[in-house]
Amino acid sequence: MTRKELIKNIKQRRSFLCVGLDTDLAKIPDHLLGSTDPMFEFNKAIIDATAPYCVAYKPNTAFYECQGIQGWQTLEKTVAYLKEKYPSHLIIADAKRGDIGNTSKMYAATFFEQMNVDAVTVAPYMGQDSVTPFLEYTGKWVVLLDLTSNKGSHDFQFFTDSDGMPLWERVLRVSAEWAGDDQMMYVVGATQGSMFQEIRRVAPTSFLLVPGVGAQGGSLEEVCRYGMTDECGLLVNSSRGIIYASKGTDFAEAAEAEARKLQTVMAGQLDKAGI
Amino acid sequence: MTRKELIKNIKQRRSFLCVGLDTDLAKIPDHLLGSTDPMFEFNKAIIDATAPYCVAYKPNTAFYECQGIQGWQTLEKTVAYLKEKYPSHLIIADAKRGDIGNTSKMYAATFFEQMNVDAVTVAPYMGQDSVTPFLEYTGKWVVLLDLTSNKGSHDFQFFTDSDGMPLWERVLRVSAEWAGDDQMMYVVGATQGSMFQEIRRVAPTSFLLVPGVGAQGGSLEEVCRYGMTDECGLLVNSSRGIIYASKGTDFAEAAEAEARKLQTVMAGQLDKAGI
Repeated sequence: MTRKELIKNIKQRRSFLCVGLDTDLAKIPDHLLGSTDPMFEFNKAIIDATAPYCVAYKPNTAFYECQGIQGWQTLEKTVAYLKEKYPSHLIIADAKRGDIGNTSKMYAATFFEQMNVDAVTVAPYMGQDSVTPFLEYTGKWVVLLDLTSNKGSHDFQFFTDSDGMPLWERVLRVSAEWAGDDQMMYVVGATQGSMFQEIRRVAPTSFLLVPGVGAQGGSLEEVCRYGMTDECGLLVNSSRGIIYASKGTDFAEAAEAEARKLQTVMAGQLDKAGI
Repeated sequence: MTRKELIKNIKQRRSFLCVGLDTDLAKIPDHLLGSTDPMFEFNKAIIDATAPYCVAYKPNTAFYECQGIQGWQTLEKTVAYLKEKYPSHLIIADAKRGDIGNTSKMYAATFFEQMNVDAVTVAPYMGQDSVTPFLEYTGKWVVLLDLTSNKGSHDFQFFTDSDGMPLWERVLRVSAEWAGDDQMMYVVGATQGSMFQEIRRVAPTSFLLVPGVGAQGGSLEEVCRYGMTDECGLLVNSSRGIIYASKGTDFAEAAEAEARKLQTVMAGQLDKAGI
């Protein structure tokens, strides 16, 4: 999916919501557990319920891998279902991969050929040749980890050089030489709301994938205030707040309601920004 | 496998060689391509040929994932084969994973429960809570990326703070607070031979997993001179130099010869150090 298509989808659907498919077998409703592939049944229902309110889906590979081959199959089936039924939704494999050049090439083939998703999250620690193999695919995206939403983000991402530049800023500046804003996005955690101003100083036009926004939409306004560009420039992710809104037989309706709630706030923010 | 067992294996086998199972379907001998699972047949032959000369195997997950479900099956079969036939060889899943706490927990379950390998490589960028879930397993190891052997290592790993401390050193110092040398090893690339002196100043006793040593053993002496401790403290990896030593029907014999060559040099180094 091109940047232009993504922006068009955001404008038409009045949403920049990404639904995180962190599907945990231990957390899905009991009544699904009898089916052949409970995780896939769950994903299908969640996708059908939330598709009108979002522009992207982000399955996190860890939740599938930990089920072994069965989990990998579920992930492939989920991606195939999305591609067939909702081809205008961006699919982000949240895999956080990255290795030396010839190995990253294999990961790029895994996600962009074998599985054929639109985007993959990549870890920056190993530098340029660990990222560039993912950039050799037209219409595909690298979502580079920059400033994450977890506590451990403070261990290294704020490590600062003698000029006062933190590592997250160096990652933005250096990686900007590898690809433009039409191929590279960045993960920027919403728990650091005021940081968006700093990020935009360095990456004024890049799309930011923003995890850590609760179902309540608590910090969503703040993220938009500091992070939104005149082409939106945001994909805000919610996982647990949507997909585990109910553990009953009404889980899909509950997920729909949560997604709609976030979409309504997002539509308001887009209106306000004249997008 | 405990640290004590690993050291015992190194002493008995007179080797600290790790064979990298970077098994690429495009590179394995033609005569294997007719079998049901060519990658597994290849791995089995390589393992049987090299086991007397090494103490560890390191399948890189990228090479298996890019074959989809079939590849994931091959990886599981390879690990099961190793565990059954060579239970005293350390199995390192070179996966370079790392995510927020609840997600890293899933990856830890994938590799330490579902697949049951002994060690997994982890990327440090997301900090403590992305690593600690892997440390909750007794007898299992985290191999943390520190100073990698690729060109891109210079992009961020040498980023230096106002006191002159580079990021790779900060990773060593901070992560030492998360686990001891009985649970954590570090990836340190051999292309930076003289750097081992620096590393040992900060991590005097930790095991280092050293990629980037060619089949010729070119820099092996230098790695030992600066990196070896009185308990060895090194696992030196060779992948392509061993497993692709020949593309003919003699590929296993050629791999054996290369592994034996490296083991001979290693035995000499262990003798010299009185280990």
